[in-house]
Amino acid sequence: MAYEQIIYEVADGVATITLNRPEKLNAFTGTMMAEMIAAFDATDADDDVRCVIVTGAGRAFCAGADLSGGGKTFDYESRGEESPVGPNGELRYSSESARDGGGRLTLRIFESVKPVIAAINGPAVGVGSTMTLPMDIRLASDTARMGFVFARRGIVPEAASSYFLPRVVGISQALEWCYSGRVFDAAEAHAGGLVKEVLPADRLLARANELAREIADNTAPVSVALTRAMLWRGLGYSHPMDAHKVDSRAILSRGRSGDAKEGVTSFLEKRAPVYPDRVSRDMPDFVPWWEEQRYS
Amino acid sequence: MAYEQIIYEVADGVATITLNRPEKLNAFTGTMMAEMIAAFDATDADDDVRCVIVTGAGRAFCAGADLSGGGKTFDYESRGEESPVGPNGELRYSSESARDGGGRLTLRIFESVKPVIAAINGPAVGVGSTMTLPMDIRLASDTARMGFVFARRGIVPEAASSYFLPRVVGISQALEWCYSGRVFDAAEAHAGGLVKEVLPADRLLARANELAREIADNTAPVSVALTRAMLWRGLGYSHPMDAHKVDSRAILSRGRSGDAKEGVTSFLEKRAPVYPDRVSRDMPDFVPWWEEQRYS
Amino acid sequence: MAYEQIIYEVADGVATITLNRPEKLNAFTGTMMAEMIAAFDATDADDDVRCVIVTGAGRAFCAGADLSGGGKTFDYESRGEESPVGPNGELRYSSESARDGGGRLTLRIFESVKPVIAAINGPAVGVGSTMTLPMDIRLASDTARMGFVFARRGIVPEAASSYFLPRVVGISQALEWCYSGRVFDAAEAHAGGLVKEVLPADRLLARANELAREIADNTAPVSVALTRAMLWRGLGYSHPMDAHKVDSRAILSRGRSGDAKEGVTSFLEKRAPVYPDRVSRDMPDFVPWWEEQRYS
Repeated sequence: MAYEQIIYEVADGVATITLNRPEKLNAFTGTMMAEMIAAFDATDADDDVRCVIVTGAGRAFCAGADLSGGGKTFDYESRGEESPVGPNGELRYSSESARDGGGRLTLRIFESVKPVIAAINGPAVGVGSTMTLPMDIRLASDTARMGFVFARRGIVPEAASSYFLPRVVGISQALEWCYSGRVFDAAEAHAGGLVKEVLPADRLLARANELAREIADNTAPVSVALTRAMLWRGLGYSHPMDAHKVDSRAILSRGRSGDAKEGVTSFLEKRAPVYPDRVSRDMPDFVPWWEEQRYS
Repeated sequence: MAYEQIIYEVADGVATITLNRPEKLNAFTGTMMAEMIAAFDATDADDDVRCVIVTGAGRAFCAGADLSGGGKTFDYESRGEESPVGPNGELRYSSESARDGGGRLTLRIFESVKPVIAAINGPAVGVGSTMTLPMDIRLASDTARMGFVFARRGIVPEAASSYFLPRVVGISQALEWCYSGRVFDAAEAHAGGLVKEVLPADRLLARANELAREIADNTAPVSVALTRAMLWRGLGYSHPMDAHKVDSRAILSRGRSGDAKEGVTSFLEKRAPVYPDRVSRDMPDFVPWWEEQRYS
Repeated sequence: MAYEQIIYEVADGVATITLNRPEKLNAFTGTMMAEMIAAFDATDADDDVRCVIVTGAGRAFCAGADLSGGGKTFDYESRGEESPVGPNGELRYSSESARDGGGRLTLRIFESVKPVIAAINGPAVGVGSTMTLPMDIRLASDTARMGFVFARRGIVPEAASSYFLPRVVGISQALEWCYSGRVFDAAEAHAGGLVKEVLPADRLLARANELAREIADNTAPVSVALTRAMLWRGLGYSHPMDAHKVDSRAILSRGRSGDAKEGVTSFLEKRAPVYPDRVSRDMPDFVPWWEEQRYS
C-alpha cells in the first residue's frame, strides 16, 4: 500500500509508523486515520512484525485535528462527506458516518495483536494525545508537550479517551487535565503517570527499539498476542471469574503447543528460544469471542 | 433556600459550600446531607456557577457521623425516622428509607454537571473522608487528617466508597486504610494518592480557587459538563466501544455548536473565548441515557 | 488436616501459611494448590484467625510451576489427571478439569473473609507472582525477585492475573512486565506499585505481623470480612449505585449490631473495644449475593 500521510517501515522485527505531515505538525486528517488503520492491519498480518512503534516526522508528534477548516472544523454537516444530519437537521447518532474518527483509530489499536509503543517526539495535542492511550507504553522526548484541549475548543474528549484516560492515569488526574484543557510538558506527563520515561530527543527512538527488542528476542509471538488481548480486555471485566474462563482456555490450548515445549525446554537448556508458532496461523479458536463490538 | 448547617456562596463563577457546624467539627447529620444535596441542585441549575469548592468552617473539615446518639448512632430502628425495620424485626433492605445517607450525597455529587474541588482544611473522618471521593480534585491543608474508620466502629465503608476508593487510590491502598481504620495525616494521604496537593492552611482556599479559575476562564461550560459525565461514567464501562458510542454522539452534537465555532476561532485568533452555550439550555439530547439509576 | 507441601500455623490471631518445598524453591504443584485452598477454608472457618500471612520456606517464595515435567509441563493431555482433551484431540474448554490451577487458587483467595498479606521472602516467579495478586497487601524482602514470565515459556498470564494485575499496577505497567517476561528485583516491584514496602529479609515477617496486629487489635471481625468483600467486588462494579445498594444494606444490618454499639461506645469511652460478633455466625443474610461464580 502506498501511504501519503504516514511512513511505514519494517526492520528487524519492528514496524515503525511515522506520522508524516511535518509542515502541518502532523495534524490529524481522515486520510491519516485511514492510513494508520491500514498500517495496523499490516502489522497484524505480518508475522515478521513483533512490535510496533508510532512516532512523528519533524519536530511534532501530532498537533491534533487540522484546524484549517476554521470554525467549521468539527461540523460534519459542512463537510463533503456523507452526512449523519437528516433533512430536517436532526442528528443520526447511530449512523456509521457519525463515528468519531479518533475513536475508529483507537478501537483499531485496541484490537492490535502486536505490542505498540508510542515514541512521543514533540507536541501531542488533542487527538495527538488521545491516540496514544490504547498504545501499551508511552515514551516522551523532553521536548514533548501533551494536552487534552477539547474543552477549550468547545468540544469533548474523543477517541474513546473517556474509557482509556481514567484507566491509564486515574480518574482525578484525567479530570483535571480534561477540565483545564491545559497543554503541559513531558515532566508533568511523567509525574501524572501518562508516560513511562522522559528521554533526550536523540535517545527516544533508540529506547523505543530497545523495549521492542526485549519482547522480540525472548517471547513467543502467539503468547504476546494473547497477552495483549487478555490484559486490555481484563481491564473491563466485572469479576475475576471472567479472566479465569479465558486464561484456563488459553493455558489449556497453549500448554500443549510447540511454543510451550520450546519455551520450557530452551529455559531448562539455558539457550535462546526458537518458537514454532505464528500469529497468522496458530491463534486458538476461542479468540472469536473477542470480535470487535459493533457501533450502534 | 435558607441553610442551617452549611454556608452557600457564589462569587465570580465559583460556588463555595462550607460545612458549618464548627462547634461539632462539622459532624455529618441528616440535615447537612439534605442541605448539601440542595446546594448541588443549586450549582447545577445556576449557569453562573462554573466550579464548586467544598470546605469546612473552623478547624475541621468534617469529623464524620455525629456520635451524640452514642451506641445507637447507626441503629435506624431506634431513630424517629420512618423505619426500614418491619414489625417482626426483619430488615427491608430495598426500602427507600434504608438508603445510606452518605451514599445519597455521593451519588448526587457523582451526577454534578460542575467540577467539584474538595478543600480539606482539617480532620475529615468517616463520611468526612468518603464524601470527598466523588469530588474531582482533593486538596488538603497540612493540618488535615483523614481516616476510613468504619471497621473500628463496628460498621462498614459507606457512601459508595467501595466503588470510589479503589478507583481513586488503588485496591491495595484502599483495603489497607479500611482494614486498619487508622486516622492518618495529610502527607500519608498525598503519598497514597488520595489528595493531589498538601498546602499550608492559609493557602488552601486560594489554591482551590486558582484551579477553579483555570477552568472558568478558558473552557466551554457544556463541554465541561459533558466531560465530567463522560469520564466518571467511562470509569465503569466494560469496553472502549461504550465510550466510542457516547463520544461520537457528543462530538457530532457539539462539533456543530456555537461553542465549537468560538473555541476554534478564538484559538486561531489568539484571544479569550466567549462561549455562547449554557448548561441549563444546551446539553445534547442523548444525556438522558445517563439518568440516575434507581435504588432497589 | 495434615499438610505435605505447606505449613499451617495460627498464633495470637494470625494464621501463617508457609509454602514448604524449600529444596524445590517451593515450586507450585497440584498438591500445593489443594492444600492452600484447604488452608484458606480453615482460616475462614476459624474465628480466632483475624488475618492471614503467606510466605515461603527457605530462600524462595515460589519459583513458579514445577518444570520437572520438562516440555510437557503445561500439557494436560500428557498428565495422569482426567483430561479435558476429547477422543479426537479436541479441547473441552468448559470442562471442570480444564480449569487453570493458579486460577482456582486465586479465586479462592478472592473469596477469603480474612485479610491476606503476602510476605515475599525471595524469588516469586510465574504463579509465584500471580498468586499474590488477590492478596491485599504485598511486602517484599530485599532479596525478592518477581516476574510474569509466561510469554518466555510459550504460555500466557494465568491465575486470573489478566483481571488482577492491571488493577493493581495499572494497564501499562502490567503489559510491559507481561510482554517482556523479565524477572525484576524488589526495587522495581516497589517502584511499579506491585509491593507496598521493601524490607530487610530479617524484618519481613515482623512487619507483616505488625500490619496484621493493627487489624486484629482494633477492628470488628464482621466489619473487616464485609469490607474485604465490598472493596474487591466494588472494583468490578459498573456504577456507584451498585455499591450504594450493598453498603446501604450493610450499614442497616451492622448499624443495629452489638459490634456497632461497642465500636461507638468504646471510642467515646477511649478504651479498647471488645466486639461481640463472629464471622462464623453473624454475617448478614445478603451475603449470598456474593456466591462464587461458576466456571463454564
